[in-house]
Amino acid sequence: MLLLRSSRPIARRRAAHISKYPDAQVISLGIGDTTEPIPEVITSAMAMRAHSLSTVEGYSGYGAEQGDKKLRAAIASTYYKDLAIDETDIFVSDGAKCDISRLQVLFGSEVKMAVQDPSYPAYVDSSVIVGQTSLFQKDIEKYGNIEYMRCVPENGFFPDLSTISHVDIIFFCSPNNPTGSATTRDQLIHLVQFAQDNGSIVVFDSAYSLYISDDSPRSIYEIPGAKEVAIETSSFSKFAGFTGVRLGWTVVPKELLFSDGFPVAKDFNRIVCTCFNGASNIAQAGGLACLSPEGLKAMVETIKFYKENTKIIVDTFKSLGFDVYGGRNAPYVWVHFPGEAGLDVVTTPGSGFGPAGEGFVRVSAFGHRANIMEAAKRIKQLYK
Amino acid sequence: MLLLRSSRPIARRRAAHISKYPDAQVISLGIGDTTEPIPEVITSAMAMRAHSLSTVEGYSGYGAEQGDKKLRAAIASTYYKDLAIDETDIFVSDGAKCDISRLQVLFGSEVKMAVQDPSYPAYVDSSVIVGQTSLFQKDIEKYGNIEYMRCVPENGFFPDLSTISHVDIIFFCSPNNPTGSATTRDQLIHLVQFAQDNGSIVVFDSAYSLYISDDSPRSIYEIPGAKEVAIETSSFSKFAGFTGVRLGWTVVPKELLFSDGFPVAKDFNRIVCTCFNGASNIAQAGGLACLSPEGLKAMVETIKFYKENTKIIVDTFKSLGFDVYGGRNAPYVWVHFPGEAGLDVVTTPGSGFGPAGEGFVRVSAFGHRANIMEAAKRIKQLYK
Repeated sequence: MLLLRSSRPIARRRAAHISKYPDAQVISLGIGDTTEPIPEVITSAMAMRAHSLSTVEGYSGYGAEQGDKKLRAAIASTYYKDLAIDETDIFVSDGAKCDISRLQVLFGSEVKMAVQDPSYPAYVDSSVIVGQTSLFQKDIEKYGNIEYMRCVPENGFFPDLSTISHVDIIFFCSPNNPTGSATTRDQLIHLVQFAQDNGSIVVFDSAYSLYISDDSPRSIYEIPGAKEVAIETSSFSKFAGFTGVRLGWTVVPKELLFSDGFPVAKDFNRIVCTCFNGASNIAQAGGLACLSPEGLKAMVETIKFYKENTKIIVDTFKSLGFDVYGGRNAPYVWVHFPGEAGLDVVTTPGSGFGPAGEGFVRVSAFGHRANIMEAAKRIKQLYK
Repeated sequence: MLLLRSSRPIARRRAAHISKYPDAQVISLGIGDTTEPIPEVITSAMAMRAHSLSTVEGYSGYGAEQGDKKLRAAIASTYYKDLAIDETDIFVSDGAKCDISRLQVLFGSEVKMAVQDPSYPAYVDSSVIVGQTSLFQKDIEKYGNIEYMRCVPENGFFPDLSTISHVDIIFFCSPNNPTGSATTRDQLIHLVQFAQDNGSIVVFDSAYSLYISDDSPRSIYEIPGAKEVAIETSSFSKFAGFTGVRLGWTVVPKELLFSDGFPVAKDFNRIVCTCFNGASNIAQAGGLACLSPEGLKAMVETIKFYKENTKIIVDTFKSLGFDVYGGRNAPYVWVHFPGEAGLDVVTTPGSGFGPAGEGFVRVSAFGHRANIMEAAKRIKQLYK
């Protein structure tokens, strides 16, 4: 039984540091966890919903497994307005990580998947759990029967698709965790074309799309033809600080069909209804508040704050002469860092996200401003 | 692709009735969904937690996937006090239904499961989804490669275990949905013994345990030796009206080992960490309030209310000469009802829970008092 790779190296490194320097204040820019309070307009809506549950008029029991109709409609009109995604294409969930697993249960053990290398570990880990892979090959640090699509500075963090053998499912995260790079429109057109030519399904993870500053697509459905080949999963976690509240969604367009013509959405709906009972009604009330005019404005402010953090981190490493990637369209900075990272700022070793991450660290911009400033100071002291 | 059986017949029947009698007020005692407001001591705690998330001191991001330490400890000390279940054996979740699926992912497609017939449809449906079963056999209304353990009045709703062939996993719900019968201590000793003798794992669903009025075991861990063979799953849904809030838990004792000696809890922990990201922090604050002295008292009141409903339903059917089962230890009444149920009170046809439910209806006691009284009146008018 192989252990999961996810955040173990971080936890171990942190513990080792604390035992070595018990008085030091360790600053962790390692974990991609939000730190700033949720805007009050959103928490007030959740508190009101909680209170209403103790009234006869306000009480409700089981909601629809697919989510509240109003919230599904608000997600469709806010994020997919001109993309012809219907509210019935949207499945509200308790977060993207959970939906990734439900999608893997949908795909089953007989498929072959491809994944960006490096990438968010949940794609590979869930693939292992549902039995799609063969054994871990220690020498190359890869599981068998997964296509690792190398994404490195040399190829602009977009894989050379001509080298990819047949795959059924392509997990693709843009803006990417950990490299922070967003896929351009031309690249995404290329990916959709590849999926069309090969009969693959793309699972597009857009959990960081609101961090995009340039004209990179925020949704894969901006690409013509994507509805026939792509599922999109997203989340309120990194937009509104909902990492602990738990709320996300997955889009499965009715146009997406299995090779026998059966709609994928019908099978996904079956999984959702059998394996899930809807996101918490209080969290859903929060999601609806996020998408109100005040909520949208407040989320923009939160994201702006983390983007300022990102800039501080990018500038710090750049000023020291490091090769720095990401940051512009994502809260993650990807630093070429062949040696050991500084002991009093914890970052995540890039190899934790896949073999192509070797020699890099991921620096997360989620943190209180004072901690980010202190981290920048320490990094400068160590490496100047 | 076979459609799920779950609540479809109910929905269809209801719709048919509404179209036939558009002016009638249909009373649904069909769906097992709570109707009474959540006690204020519990909703206030959730509202407070929601508000605190907009403060620097109160904000928190990702929680532990296994749940807040405090809540795990409170569940252990409240429900498993003298049963030597440790807080680390408890995995907090977004509900029993979701945990049933995660357990099925853990068990995989190679196992054979047994299920009470009739029973809550999620056991069979999730088994079908992970690929444990063979095709549905229409003539006998059963999936292949599942052991349907017949539970009928003739055997006191406890299966004849001597007729059961080898099974790996036994899903067992007590008090049972839909029959409302609770397993006695002697029966449960027998079940644990059977699992020990056959190397099976029992998944004991105790979602209705607080409805028990007699001395039937509320937890399978009351039976000596159960920790070596049983997982227990439970929920705040039917205790505190959390059907929409979403909160439950699963107990996987460290004493439970796979045949190769590997602890089941370690693998389940891996599933939980990969496929789930913890229950909503607001819902967990509600769970903790449920287990406070005031919360426990308030939950007792809610359950008492539904038990009064149950008594009205039982008395109604008994006064008309029907054979009535359940009700004493569960919010479900199981009525022998070979004909068609009355058109203006919707109940659930027993066959929706498995072939042995044929000729019965399940009457749910979840409802406002006025509706229960009106239903009782209509039933009496129809069948007197």
